[in-house]
Amino acid sequence: MNLYDYIASIPDYPIKGILFRDVTPAVQDGKAFKEVIRLLAQYAKKVGAEVILGPESRGFIFGCPVAYELNIGFVPARKPNKLPREVISVEYELEYGTSTLEIHKDAIKPGQKVLVIDDLLATGGTIKAANQLVEQLGGIVVGNAFLIELVDLKGREELAGYDVYSILEYEGE
Amino acid sequence: MNLYDYIASIPDYPIKGILFRDVTPAVQDGKAFKEVIRLLAQYAKKVGAEVILGPESRGFIFGCPVAYELNIGFVPARKPNKLPREVISVEYELEYGTSTLEIHKDAIKPGQKVLVIDDLLATGGTIKAANQLVEQLGGIVVGNAFLIELVDLKGREELAGYDVYSILEYEGE
Repeated sequence: MNLYDYIASIPDYPIKGILFRDVTPAVQDGKAFKEVIRLLAQYAKKVGAEVILGPESRGFIFGCPVAYELNIGFVPARKPNKLPREVISVEYELEYGTSTLEIHKDAIKPGQKVLVIDDLLATGGTIKAANQLVEQLGGIVVGNAFLIELVDLKGREELAGYDVYSILEYEGE
Repeated sequence: MNLYDYIASIPDYPIKGILFRDVTPAVQDGKAFKEVIRLLAQYAKKVGAEVILGPESRGFIFGCPVAYELNIGFVPARKPNKLPREVISVEYELEYGTSTLEIHKDAIKPGQKVLVIDDLLATGGTIKAANQLVEQLGGIVVGNAFLIELVDLKGREELAGYDVYSILEYEGE
């Protein structure tokens, strides 16, 4: 099965000049979704993940089934004021302005091997922040995995030093 | 295993007088998460679900592994301006004001059997809206499933006519 057939490309979304890669066709099709999770879970086993972390909210869509498949836990990384217990935070830069990502303070144990999963690697800012959250709690980031990588945005350079895996690559746009 | 041990109760969150039931301990523990998904998937098979729909973003956490387990697709129901392709919308009432839920127009096929999954059943407003979205596209809602039901808020009455399943019940608060 060609998973590229299950990615929709939307011109000028969310703003003019951006070609948005929409993963929802790969999620709403049972066979495509199974295949995506199978590949991500295979990588998760290879790197020895003991817990999966995913940023809200598309990171939940791919990260939770991988955690389920490996019989391990899932840690949601969320925007401020969404998690009810004590949190740690990382502020990170966006193209315009800043954003903040949080996880519960008890979400990662020192020495635990953590795989961060999201739908798409663009500039890598969100994932770098997620990696920093893991490390603040003494966790070990064993990898960063994505369904899609937008190669030209050089997220791999932003994530230098981390093991990066992506299923589908888009370049030249 | 007693799943009640994996729900955190947070007094006065998000506002004074509310006892918030936090499901994240049941998600970050691999065994508890496996058991929750096993029970939801068992129910999904029983009602013959052909696709799972979950509202953002905690509905993604429980709905996606169930879809994966059953080899079926997952449809994210989202707040406005989050889905890039053509959508249908339902506006629904909250305690103060209104909110809107959307799904992609191609997400459900006529006659398809849909199970709506979320973390928690409170007053049922969000889930009723999700059921209406399914029916607008000609789908058949075969059930509504939750990890937690806050019995006193009478969500089951709001969802009268639908098959409702919950794993954990809280009452008398």
